[in-house]
Amino acid sequence: MCYNRPASLGADGGESIYTRLTHEILTGGLNMSVLTGACIIGLSGGPTSVINASFYGAVTTALNTPEITAVLAAEHGIKGVLNNVLFDMRQEDPEELKLLMNTPSAAVGSCRYKLADPSKDSADYNRILETFKQHNVRYFFYIGGNDSMDTCEKIGRFLNYTGYECRVIGIPKTIDNDLYGTDHCPGFGSAAKYIATSCMEVSMDSAVYDTGAITVMEIMGRHAGWLAGSAGLASHFGAGPDLVYLPEIAFDVERFLDDVLELYKRKGSVFAAVSEGIHDNNGVFISDYAAAGDSAKDAFGHVRLGGLAAYLAAIVKQKTDAKVRGIELSLLQRCAAHCASQVDISEAFTAGEYAVKAALNGESGKMAAFEREDGESYKCSPVLLPLEAVANLEKKVPLDWINKSGNGITREFIDYTLPLIQGEPCRATDCSLPRFANLQKIRVY
Amino acid sequence: MCYNRPASLGADGGESIYTRLTHEILTGGLNMSVLTGACIIGLSGGPTSVINASFYGAVTTALNTPEITAVLAAEHGIKGVLNNVLFDMRQEDPEELKLLMNTPSAAVGSCRYKLADPSKDSADYNRILETFKQHNVRYFFYIGGNDSMDTCEKIGRFLNYTGYECRVIGIPKTIDNDLYGTDHCPGFGSAAKYIATSCMEVSMDSAVYDTGAITVMEIMGRHAGWLAGSAGLASHFGAGPDLVYLPEIAFDVERFLDDVLELYKRKGSVFAAVSEGIHDNNGVFISDYAAAGDSAKDAFGHVRLGGLAAYLAAIVKQKTDAKVRGIELSLLQRCAAHCASQVDISEAFTAGEYAVKAALNGESGKMAAFEREDGESYKCSPVLLPLEAVANLEKKVPLDWINKSGNGITREFIDYTLPLIQGEPCRATDCSLPRFANLQKIRVY
Repeated sequence: MCYNRPASLGADGGESIYTRLTHEILTGGLNMSVLTGACIIGLSGGPTSVINASFYGAVTTALNTPEITAVLAAEHGIKGVLNNVLFDMRQEDPEELKLLMNTPSAAVGSCRYKLADPSKDSADYNRILETFKQHNVRYFFYIGGNDSMDTCEKIGRFLNYTGYECRVIGIPKTIDNDLYGTDHCPGFGSAAKYIATSCMEVSMDSAVYDTGAITVMEIMGRHAGWLAGSAGLASHFGAGPDLVYLPEIAFDVERFLDDVLELYKRKGSVFAAVSEGIHDNNGVFISDYAAAGDSAKDAFGHVRLGGLAAYLAAIVKQKTDAKVRGIELSLLQRCAAHCASQVDISEAFTAGEYAVKAALNGESGKMAAFEREDGESYKCSPVLLPLEAVANLEKKVPLDWINKSGNGITREFIDYTLPLIQGEPCRATDCSLPRFANLQKIRVY
Repeated sequence: MCYNRPASLGADGGESIYTRLTHEILTGGLNMSVLTGACIIGLSGGPTSVINASFYGAVTTALNTPEITAVLAAEHGIKGVLNNVLFDMRQEDPEELKLLMNTPSAAVGSCRYKLADPSKDSADYNRILETFKQHNVRYFFYIGGNDSMDTCEKIGRFLNYTGYECRVIGIPKTIDNDLYGTDHCPGFGSAAKYIATSCMEVSMDSAVYDTGAITVMEIMGRHAGWLAGSAGLASHFGAGPDLVYLPEIAFDVERFLDDVLELYKRKGSVFAAVSEGIHDNNGVFISDYAAAGDSAKDAFGHVRLGGLAAYLAAIVKQKTDAKVRGIELSLLQRCAAHCASQVDISEAFTAGEYAVKAALNGESGKMAAFEREDGESYKCSPVLLPLEAVANLEKKVPLDWINKSGNGITREFIDYTLPLIQGEPCRATDCSLPRFANLQKIRVY
């Protein structure tokens, strides 16, 4: 038995904001609101191991729907709509499409592109509408995180305003698990599993000599500590970090040094995991201490982080003779499809499928989300919630899921996360190496 | 069909230096030279995903041998012999021992300890002899790389000199694959598989945006490019580095920049893999350019490397507006047991088993090695070769297995490496996380 007392993390508003598709709709019998036309599916934001599974869920459901006259994938998310670069999914080999279930990254490219407020600058929106009209697009599905849900919500609002009938549904995706209103987010479980697995292995390796070793591992997660916390799963299974620091708690370099050095004195080896987003009491990222003057910002105004593990390792090194090593999991943690969670893959597919079914049933301006049932065993089912309840919000780790010392996670975190990392992916290989989907990407004009 | 025309990399001396155990000995019937006493098994050098499989091969074979009266494991390699810290393997749960097959790192610890020349300083040797006499040790098995084979050879020579009867056999282990005289080395296949798999995934991820990306990945391998070359397997399977630099070819920073920038202009994204050991025409490590003044050396005089990816990324960044990212695979590549090669695991076990059988048959001063048969399909069998033909030598990648531009590998490299990464490990898990061996480590006094 891997888990008990799973805790649910719904939106603050409780049940009231959720919509559910009926069993009849889900099983395909009922279509309450016929709207015939093409659909566009776009992938946006940082890749994950399972965003393509959501993509496949949407594509295959749409391909099997007579009302959807064309299934188009936008190159590089909304940019492909703006630039009218769209690929016809009906021309792809169905067997190749199936391989999307285990192909990391975004098969038709992704983007980080922020749309202007439509009331201030409608140029992009007019261009989008033009593309939609050209291809008679009546369904728009956008897979992404909170920034992408913002994009999705704005487009839906603009289309409503213009009176062009098109149903817009968001499909959640982020390794960060910081999307609001959903119990968890596809992409997180696989990243968490890779992080926990790698931490167990590194923990075994880093303590192999008796000559003293301190290892600092940097894990993604800008404002929410879900991924860093997942390193704590490894510790729960007997081989993992001794210390885990999440960005929900202000980070104090001196206290970190005390934690590490005290433990080193006692154990002879220390393994600490830190979130890339740890920051001081004033909200200044610790990584900025090192990279001052080099804080390039992305289109959404997020400071680009990196080099934190090396920085903390250097600080520790000044205080000890131990061999100190900084490890950054970097891109590996968001694309390690070989170590994905089957639960995550299946749910990612479900999210894509559910979004299409919801749109066919007349829903628009919603995001597919997951709601966890209370009980001893894990059960999650998809629901819909309004995009405006999701866009631009961030769901953080509850403070009482972090231990009192601020350097580890509690049982609640484990109970929540463990069900999400279950199951080995049944993936195609070629000579024991991954066999990824290789799409033809045939453009429509 | 995963491979063809496998090329063999035997010792220069050809067949003559090899010894083979007969079928009768291997199947357990024959024991030509009865010697009764305890055995000590030690693990040395950098950990791998499969060193514990060799350890298990030796332990389980020894436990099933009546002549071997006690099966002792030395804590932290030769240090455990020097300090008389030995664990009794007969007291371990056999089911727990079996888990060693998929447990990375060294279950009883490892060391990097260089023995003095016995003709100059025999203090350590006398201490070793004392421990051997105390426990009536008549068999000594040492699992490690070329430095460890040096240790093994010196101990064998010293024991011979003193007239104390003890059979000494080395068991090869290194992810670097630089051990001389053996076709390949247990540990390499699993590291190569992890590197190639990760490179395929990172390749998918790093090209996901259309905004320009250059990724530089640093891979282990001090003097030999076997691991960096393995990144080229990924490229062969359709998603991998565009450029691969091995330490066998002098590295020119300007030429590297030309390679990267020219490709970036053409493709919009570039992925380059470099060995940590790349060096300029004068043999100066490129990593030392960055870390000048910080070149701490280990006990064997090797310069400790690190930070190369970040250094090269910074250099590239100065020349382009692309997002440039340095990734260091660090410890992950040598402990990723979840992505091990079953061929590698099985061969690692065989090496341990073969070493014990060889010693029982009267062999000493030898190392278990692998010889590959010529032919269309992969077949390797264990042989013995003299320790002095292995110790302190390094096997490098043949220059004609590197492309003419010095930035990639040839078909010969792929044909050689591909058979070594085959097969998924059948490993124990607990809640979808690894279940590693947890030994009791009960000391003998």
